[in-house]
Amino acid sequence: MAHVRTLVEAGRHVVLTHGNGPQVGNILLKNQLTADVVPPVPLDWCGAQTQATIGTLIMNALDPIPAAVVVTRTLVDPGDPAFADPDKPIGRYFPESEARRFEAHGEVWRSFERGWRRVVASPQPLRILDAPAAIALMEAGYVVVAAGGGGVPVARTADGKLGGVEAVIDKDRAAAVLARAVGADTLIIATDVPNAVVGYGTPGARPLGAVTAAELRDLHAAGHFASGSMGPKVEAATRFVEDGGRLSVITSLERLADDKSGTRVSKQMER
Amino acid sequence: MAHVRTLVEAGRHVVLTHGNGPQVGNILLKNQLTADVVPPVPLDWCGAQTQATIGTLIMNALDPIPAAVVVTRTLVDPGDPAFADPDKPIGRYFPESEARRFEAHGEVWRSFERGWRRVVASPQPLRILDAPAAIALMEAGYVVVAAGGGGVPVARTADGKLGGVEAVIDKDRAAAVLARAVGADTLIIATDVPNAVVGYGTPGARPLGAVTAAELRDLHAAGHFASGSMGPKVEAATRFVEDGGRLSVITSLERLADDKSGTRVSKQMER
Repeated sequence: MAHVRTLVEAGRHVVLTHGNGPQVGNILLKNQLTADVVPPVPLDWCGAQTQATIGTLIMNALDPIPAAVVVTRTLVDPGDPAFADPDKPIGRYFPESEARRFEAHGEVWRSFERGWRRVVASPQPLRILDAPAAIALMEAGYVVVAAGGGGVPVARTADGKLGGVEAVIDKDRAAAVLARAVGADTLIIATDVPNAVVGYGTPGARPLGAVTAAELRDLHAAGHFASGSMGPKVEAATRFVEDGGRLSVITSLERLADDKSGTRVSKQMER
Repeated sequence: MAHVRTLVEAGRHVVLTHGNGPQVGNILLKNQLTADVVPPVPLDWCGAQTQATIGTLIMNALDPIPAAVVVTRTLVDPGDPAFADPDKPIGRYFPESEARRFEAHGEVWRSFERGWRRVVASPQPLRILDAPAAIALMEAGYVVVAAGGGGVPVARTADGKLGGVEAVIDKDRAAAVLARAVGADTLIIATDVPNAVVGYGTPGARPLGAVTAAELRDLHAAGHFASGSMGPKVEAATRFVEDGGRLSVITSLERLADDKSGTRVSKQMER
């Protein structure tokens, strides 16, 4: 949060979002290990839980900067093809015998090199339902934490009622939708490396600086970015600009407040 | 939420809070059963988790009424005497051998008639730190869910930093503090019975209707209300009025929106 503090002190209005993979992994493991004793909680609950815990840590770390955490639901389409073909692995690897036992409870498990792992649907985020509440708090002067872990996945049933669904939402995709919904000028995706890298792992590898959304989309289509790590960040950065955002930046946490660093994506080349 | 909806439709501005005993009980049990495999999460995390899950259910149930859930921290004094003498039992009963094992991890367990149970500190809520965010949302037109489970317990360390503490906060006490903090006119404590009862379980038992805060305090001092159930509600209702609130009502969920029902506490007798 030291780096976020720098942004805030520079006068930026900041809305934060965050991932939750390791935290949901622990919750799922507890679910699995105690399923015979305590009712396991569904995935929407797991996601909600991590918004509140991580959000509280963020608020405490930012103090005395006023910050607020909005529990945030993300609407998905119950007809999203992801539900018919769950492919996002979550939680730990288990031996096949255990995986079969969980399958008997309605879960989908797949065999990977390192063992069996649960796979779930990762549908597209259609709308951040609680973005208006985030905006109200932003306008009241708060640093707002919203849509953590991609948001609590909800869908409308045929009779129009909202309810949680058994899914996870990609945090980078949700970040792009949230950024547009709150009217953000810039989407910054903070990660472990200072830039996206073209030709990663090859002799011609080079860090990517200023780039247009169209160029970045072409590089992504040419297979330059790994599907599980940099790929979703590149997609989110591209989508935000294509949807009308001014600038996306992929950079390291340390360089968050540096307005020259990182892979900088805009509609036309920055001068 | 059907009854809350009635209040909202009658034009009332509603801030909701809620308990979390059963939900925290399940989280604690998972913690305890998996402590050798997954790091148990501290009590402030347990509380935060339940704010987000229960809050999401409430928002979904109120839809399309605009509602928002604010993750809410409650400040306590690290010198509160409750920390020296933890006495609030939480979670399930365990056999002594298990209790001793948890004690070795730093927890406090006590022997009760039905077995051993963990006891924790229940310090006084000093301030609802995130009440200003709740007010901002209320003013923006939202039904706000705040301070669920009494709030996430936090305290300031000697160097002024905020951090979670291993404690639970009484939900009724926190409700009284929250109600004052958001400038509420009325504090309604919805429970399973339509009234507090004087002489409960005796031939002279009678439901309590309109009563002044001073009279109610005297009845409480005379031992009319059970310490684990109606006692904290009576205390919260009394405190809210003594601190300047107009009216406290203890009633059943079904009679929430009925402005004649329940035990109605004010400074001077209602006409």
